[in-house]
Formats: sequence, structure tokens, C-alpha cells
Amino acid sequence: MNEQQAVVLLSGGLDSTTVLAIAQSQGFTCHCLSFQYGQRQVVELERARRICGHYGVQRHLILRVDLGAIGGSALTTEQEVPKDRPFDAMDQEIPVTYVPGRNILFLAHALSWAEVMGASDIFLGINAVDYSGYPDCRPEFLAAFAQMANLGTKAGVTGRPFHFHAPLLRLSKKEIILRGKALGVDYGLTHSCYDPVGDLACGRCDACRLRLQGFRDAGLSDPAGYVTKDISR
Amino acid sequence: MNEQQAVVLLSGGLDSTTVLAIAQSQGFTCHCLSFQYGQRQVVELERARRICGHYGVQRHLILRVDLGAIGGSALTTEQEVPKDRPFDAMDQEIPVTYVPGRNILFLAHALSWAEVMGASDIFLGINAVDYSGYPDCRPEFLAAFAQMANLGTKAGVTGRPFHFHAPLLRLSKKEIILRGKALGVDYGLTHSCYDPVGDLACGRCDACRLRLQGFRDAGLSDPAGYVTKDISR
Repeated sequence: MNEQQAVVLLSGGLDSTTVLAIAQSQGFTCHCLSFQYGQRQVVELERARRICGHYGVQRHLILRVDLGAIGGSALTTEQEVPKDRPFDAMDQEIPVTYVPGRNILFLAHALSWAEVMGASDIFLGINAVDYSGYPDCRPEFLAAFAQMANLGTKAGVTGRPFHFHAPLLRLSKKEIILRGKALGVDYGLTHSCYDPVGDLACGRCDACRLRLQGFRDAGLSDPAGYVTKDISR
Repeated sequence: MNEQQAVVLLSGGLDSTTVLAIAQSQGFTCHCLSFQYGQRQVVELERARRICGHYGVQRHLILRVDLGAIGGSALTTEQEVPKDRPFDAMDQEIPVTYVPGRNILFLAHALSWAEVMGASDIFLGINAVDYSGYPDCRPEFLAAFAQMANLGTKAGVTGRPFHFHAPLLRLSKKEIILRGKALGVDYGLTHSCYDPVGDLACGRCDACRLRLQGFRDAGLSDPAGYVTKDISR
């Protein structure tokens, strides 16, 4: 076990909560970072707060990011979130829920915070398997970000390089859920939906469908509340 | 002349205003981006507004960045800004005015905005000569950022790569000023000081001293208002 400090990007969803559990299981003292960026699904921030309480994280910082002013995504505008998309369509194109530069912005904030507090490790829940076509969820992107970060920061150029951990990068949703269950994650605390109705997940957006299918593949029942759990459409 | 759209990072200082003039002279339709990040020198935002009016830029977006919540720099905290530093000391170490991850954050926002509006060109005024020891002002950093950006965005991976222009990268302050004067820049509109007294530049921080020396080297008088212009200390 180490006593290193880590910044964990925590959206309050299934993936990032699993990542937090993994980072803690590796002995990192975790500082969680969430963002208010004009997303429809602000309920996830409340979930992120509860999850931080549950895990007794050192500090939970919620930063505002002006993505709403920048615009351009169904996640931050009134544009419609796609529903009932077949799974094979999700890999074919970059969807309207793509937020231009979102992971770059999130990682840039995490990097800045990590540098200020002297942490060298940054954890995030990106995933290249069920990634729904997002370019900023691929391993080659993360490697390029790490290289840039270590050239563009005082820590990086003075011999304390940053390490970016994406432990879910090559796992299927089923494998992520099984990994989390083995670590005792309570997925009832998490929220993944792009277009929730109050506290309930819609069950029909890409995120819900991938999640529900993941639980099904794992032979488990998703404890989260849904408007519908029928993904046969 | 082209009719391409460009995002110009505009702080309201001498360097970024020169960059705006250069981008316009190359025929780009310019969209300027400034940041409110908890900086002491908020006067620069007012200058940026005036400069955008002067140049008739298409749009001026001022985004909030939560660097104050992150902390860690003399530019965003009550930590003292160094004064009267000898010029040869400025290159030797990374100063307390270094803001962890600042240029990375600024570029990440510029990238996001550029992608939303379909612009492929991003201009910024970083400079590796008088750069005061900032790791995020070096050409190798910018090259790494560009590579990361083109792997992590929809535009980048679908064949519309971003181009990052840093026309001042290898110019001395004197050369920057002469370049700007040739393009008709009114440097009286600009503000560079890290620690201004009302509307006046202090004349003693690194930024003021480099600027005043640049005008002296160029054989010109700086039209900006200063508490002191004496850099002989």
C-alpha cells in the first residue's frame, strides 16, 4: 500500500465510481473532482457528493466549466438525446452527445489541481470498448495528453511526471461491473443517464442501454431506478 | 487572403494584441477568447473588451475558469508578485506567478470553442524567448498539445485537424513590438502588468520590466500608464 495522493475524476456514474473504488483499493488517498458544465444531468453531481461521503474521500471539488457558453452538444443544449439506438450503431459514428473537448477540459482541470497539491496520479474512467464513438476516450488520446502534460507543467519538467490511470480503458461494461462488485461498489448510488426524469434514469439513451446490457451480461440486476429497463427495442 | 475563422486567445496584453493584429493581417475572421480566472489583474479584461471593439472582432467570449478554487499561484492568490527581478534571473527558474496548467486550460477552452464553430485555427501569444521560465510557453509543449488535440476531438479524427499558431514564439520583446507597430497596433490599449495599481501598471513585476525593456530596445516609448518606468533597479 502506498500513501500517494491521487485526483479522481468523478462524474457520479458507474464507471468513475468504479475507478474511485479501484484507486482506493490501490492505497491512494483520493481527491475527487466533479464539474458543473451546464449538463442536463445535474443529478449526477448530487450522486457524486453522496459517493464521496460514502468513500470518505479527502476532498471533493466541484468546478464550474463554461461549456454551456461554448455550446455545441446535446448534453448541454436543448438538442435531443438519441433514444433506443441499436448497440451496433453506437460504435459507428460520433454521437450528438459528444461534447467538444470535454475530456480535454476535465483532464486539464485535474492536472492543474494535482499540480497545486503535489499529486502525481490522476484517475479517470474512460473506456474504449463501449465508448460510443468518443475520440477522447481512446488510449492514443490519453497517451498524447500525458506527454503534453509532462511538457507543459512545472512538475512534469522538474522530474515529477504525472501518471494517468484509466483502469477501465479495455474492459467491457460487464467486466467493469464485475470488477466494481468485487470491490463492494454500491451501484445504487451511481447515475449514468444522459436524459434523466427527476431521479430516474431514462433507460433509453446510449448510456442507459450500455449500462443495462452490462448488468444483464454480468448476470446481475441494476439497483438504480429507471423509467424503463426494457432494452429489447 | 483567406476567409477562415480563427480563435485568438486574447488577454488584453501586448503579446496577444499583437497576435490578433497578425491573425487579422493574414485574413482570418477572428473570434477572441478571454478568461476570468480569479486573476489580480482583472483590468486586462476591460482592455481586452476595448481591443476587440477597436479591431471589430466577430465575437468576444469571456469564460470563467475556476483557477481560484484550485489555487496555487501568485496571480490568483494573495501571494506576493516578485518585483525588480534582474532580467537574467527570470530565465533561471519557474516563478511564483506560474499558474499550474493555465495555458493548457486556456488552450483546451479555445479548442472546444473552435470545434463548436468549425474553426481550425487557434492563435496564441506564447513566447519562448522572454518567457520567464514557464514550461507551457515552449514550442515542444505546443507541438504536444496539437498532437493531443488532433487525437482527442471529432474534428481532429475526421480529417479537419487544428492548427496552432504562435507567431511570437521565437521573437524577442523588441521584435514583437516592432512587428506590432508595423501593423499599426496601439499599445496604449494594452495591459501587461501582473500587479496593477488601478489602471496603472506597476513597472516592477517581470511582465512590466520585460515590456519596458522591449520598448527601450525598439527605440520607442511605451504609451501605457505606469507607476514607475524606471527599470534600472
